[in-house]
Amino acid sequence: MEPRPLASAEEAWKIASSLRYRHIDGTVVAVAQDVVTKDVLMVAYMDPIAVVLTLTTGLAHYFSTTRKRVWLKGETSGHYQIVKEFRTDCDGDAVVLKVFQIGAACHTGSRSCFESSASHVLKSGEERRGLL
Amino acid sequence: MEPRPLASAEEAWKIASSLRYRHIDGTVVAVAQDVVTKDVLMVAYMDPIAVVLTLTTGLAHYFSTTRKRVWLKGETSGHYQIVKEFRTDCDGDAVVLKVFQIGAACHTGSRSCFESSASHVLKSGEERRGLL
Repeated sequence: MEPRPLASAEEAWKIASSLRYRHIDGTVVAVAQDVVTKDVLMVAYMDPIAVVLTLTTGLAHYFSTTRKRVWLKGETSGHYQIVKEFRTDCDGDAVVLKVFQIGAACHTGSRSCFESSASHVLKSGEERRGLL
Repeated sequence: MEPRPLASAEEAWKIASSLRYRHIDGTVVAVAQDVVTKDVLMVAYMDPIAVVLTLTTGLAHYFSTTRKRVWLKGETSGHYQIVKEFRTDCDGDAVVLKVFQIGAACHTGSRSCFESSASHVLKSGEERRGLL
């Protein structure tokens, strides 16, 4: 599967300019969701540049709040996210990306950051796992 | 469907204490996902109290970064979220709630904040809608 642009540069800047970057380091929250299973893979952050790069390349880019820079997801691991859909919320401070995930989304090697060995899962009813 | 606790008070505080509240106003990011369709309904924030109230009641509570207080989702609208699963991520700064949504998740009246009239949707390929 090849990445394909979701917008022209002009369109991408229009979208990027419409968002409200009210989170850490001037970002919006970005939720990456598996386009096939609809599982939430990870939560990350985007500054305007990450939004534009994502839309114009079709590869997910985020803003690293620890490294204080834009990063191409998979730039070192090869675990790229091919973006099939980009969706903004009602007040423009969060986005959902539906992605085709190459390899593992999580730096721990788990497919999802919410299925890592460090995750806790609590369910209403009996089933439990994790810390408890 | 009745809400059911996901944890005892002691267990809930243990989970709440394990998270890293590094977002606005000392919160973690909370992604609410429809337990039936797996659509992402909204992105909100939780402080430790919101985490504990959610786990012990089975009803989603968030921290409002505009009103600077904990709120029971649906407290005025009646659009409660019955939490079936609560899941933390690999580094403890984000959670995913799988919820049974009563009525609309979005304050605009849309079922999801990502399907509101103010949302923009861009897809790789031809299909487009929204601002463009």
